[in-house]
Amino acid sequence: MELSSIKLSKKIGGKIEIKSKQKLTKKSLPILYTPGVAEVSKAIAKDKKLSFEYTIRKNTVAVISDGSAVLGLGNIGSEAALPVMEGKALLFKELGGVDAIPIVLATQDTEEIIKTVKYLAPTFGGINLEDISAPRCFEIEERLKKELDIPVFHDDQHGTAIVVLAGLINALKVVKKNIKNIKIVISGTGAAGVAVCKLLLKYGAKNIIMIDSQGIIYRGRQGLNESKIAIAKITNSKNLKGTIRDAVIKADVFIGVSAPNLLKKDDIKKMNKDAIVFAMANPVPEIMPAEAKNGGAKVIATGRSDYPNQINNVLAFPGIFRGALDNKIKQITGIYKIKAAKAIAGLIKKPTSDRIVPEALDPKVSKAVAKIFTR
Amino acid sequence: MELSSIKLSKKIGGKIEIKSKQKLTKKSLPILYTPGVAEVSKAIAKDKKLSFEYTIRKNTVAVISDGSAVLGLGNIGSEAALPVMEGKALLFKELGGVDAIPIVLATQDTEEIIKTVKYLAPTFGGINLEDISAPRCFEIEERLKKELDIPVFHDDQHGTAIVVLAGLINALKVVKKNIKNIKIVISGTGAAGVAVCKLLLKYGAKNIIMIDSQGIIYRGRQGLNESKIAIAKITNSKNLKGTIRDAVIKADVFIGVSAPNLLKKDDIKKMNKDAIVFAMANPVPEIMPAEAKNGGAKVIATGRSDYPNQINNVLAFPGIFRGALDNKIKQITGIYKIKAAKAIAGLIKKPTSDRIVPEALDPKVSKAVAKIFTR
Repeated sequence: MELSSIKLSKKIGGKIEIKSKQKLTKKSLPILYTPGVAEVSKAIAKDKKLSFEYTIRKNTVAVISDGSAVLGLGNIGSEAALPVMEGKALLFKELGGVDAIPIVLATQDTEEIIKTVKYLAPTFGGINLEDISAPRCFEIEERLKKELDIPVFHDDQHGTAIVVLAGLINALKVVKKNIKNIKIVISGTGAAGVAVCKLLLKYGAKNIIMIDSQGIIYRGRQGLNESKIAIAKITNSKNLKGTIRDAVIKADVFIGVSAPNLLKKDDIKKMNKDAIVFAMANPVPEIMPAEAKNGGAKVIATGRSDYPNQINNVLAFPGIFRGALDNKIKQITGIYKIKAAKAIAGLIKKPTSDRIVPEALDPKVSKAVAKIFTR
Repeated sequence: MELSSIKLSKKIGGKIEIKSKQKLTKKSLPILYTPGVAEVSKAIAKDKKLSFEYTIRKNTVAVISDGSAVLGLGNIGSEAALPVMEGKALLFKELGGVDAIPIVLATQDTEEIIKTVKYLAPTFGGINLEDISAPRCFEIEERLKKELDIPVFHDDQHGTAIVVLAGLINALKVVKKNIKNIKIVISGTGAAGVAVCKLLLKYGAKNIIMIDSQGIIYRGRQGLNESKIAIAKITNSKNLKGTIRDAVIKADVFIGVSAPNLLKKDDIKKMNKDAIVFAMANPVPEIMPAEAKNGGAKVIATGRSDYPNQINNVLAFPGIFRGALDNKIKQITGIYKIKAAKAIAGLIKKPTSDRIVPEALDPKVSKAVAKIFTR
């Protein structure tokens, strides 16, 4: 695997390329370029909205990263993040028909990133932020949402949250439990964990415990950053303290977006009956599926393609942007995220322990997700 | 023409698109994206130079504009500039095989543009600046050249200068004059005019008079900006004053990158015998070819495709970047510009009055230009 990825990169030097939609001829040149193009420019100068009809903006999003939180690799910098953004662009095109342009930035300063993305905005119909570390990613996304009139979507947050919710909707059907009555433990309070927590609350969850590397997050804990102080206010109503092991006792759902090998079989045994375990640390999950099963887990999902129930963001983002571009949606609000999760879940007619989400490359998925914007 | 450009834009919504180089399958997904891509990212994190081998950077340039000086349309803003940048990207791909990504910026502040381009740089193998107004474009380009380690090329300056020099090399062969002994008048002291002037001086011209909308530029003229003060120092050694009409008397060459209808037949008559007239204001030249001919001009060129001798930047930029990317050139220096001009001129074996430069879409041109970097 390692060899073939590098070998392929050496051979093709970049996973995507630019393709002209029109053939260049002596006859087409003055239409595609000067002098003909001047008429198109003049029309857009008069009415900027026409840029969404007459230019690449109609079908193009930027995939923008600062390289600060790339895959499981951490802060590897902008150049090293580029191959991942290219992969993302390829998925955008192949699954959603969206022209995505990878852009990696040589700054990790919050204000500079916000400003740069604002300057770039007139080129694009949407902005997909990618692999930006928490808590900076929260402010960057919030501010851009307020200050831009095109959709801004941080996939590590909302893509993950949507697909986790989709999986949970079907997992809860399998175990016949209601989200209102269950205890959910989320390990990881970075971009993904916080977004998952917020979306589950919005969907109706009442009892969520959040964990970071120091253990349970509770009101009054020393050294919490702003984002975690906010999380402490909306979770853990009984203000429990302790480790991840304490948290999972009597829990119905464990959701891991954190680190490898945090749980053992015995921890799963202490969860409630028919436990749901989404262990999504990649490539090594918080607990391996076989061990979780031995501990009594009923539904198990991971981020990996070599086990059943792969929770993969690719189920969400191509359809989200396909639909947003086609319907000129300016904000991907929480309502849309829940609708997207339901649309993904709805593609599995009879959920089972081993089948709660569609296959990553199922072409029906992005179509179903895109449709939520047409209401 | 007007109708068909807008009609085409409405129909296709953008002239270029993203194309995946690899097919997405269950088998290729983990190689193109996670987990396989991590090995590529790790390799680049260790050695950033590998980004020029393993990513789109190998073959991709940004075509960046702030929309401040678009074609003949002036400051029409970023959205309205986008169709032109798309056209440019299409020409880059079709003629040079270069993947060019159009980017228009929502700022016209010199420092902000410099900073933004620097932040974008890790994505690209080169930066083509486009349609940025003078004198800001001079500082933006100079600073970026100093501060970046990829080639930065403002096409309005250097593309124009290269193709004008190419045309002039052959025009001088037709009239059998030597650049060292002739009087050259350049009308227009924006991005193009200044760059043409500097390149002709570098190539050996001794006697150049520059004109702006106020007339001849001379040392001590009131209200000159920094760029024009510098121009006054290196041209017009006799410190002539007056209008464009005064300037062209006894001139051998007139080069116009300025405004329509500035000269009459009688002005051409006052030029030296076998005058060369490059009237490149677009779409309406400084003097129409028929009138220049009536005035006695021997070689006439314009920017238009419907007359002989079209001076079109497309003869230079695709080959310049093709060669720079392939040979990892970090700076397009003056030497390369002269070599490029000679390469373009050299494709015309026997220059005549009506044939001093190759056709805009001649596929031999970009190959010949790219070759100058291999020495």
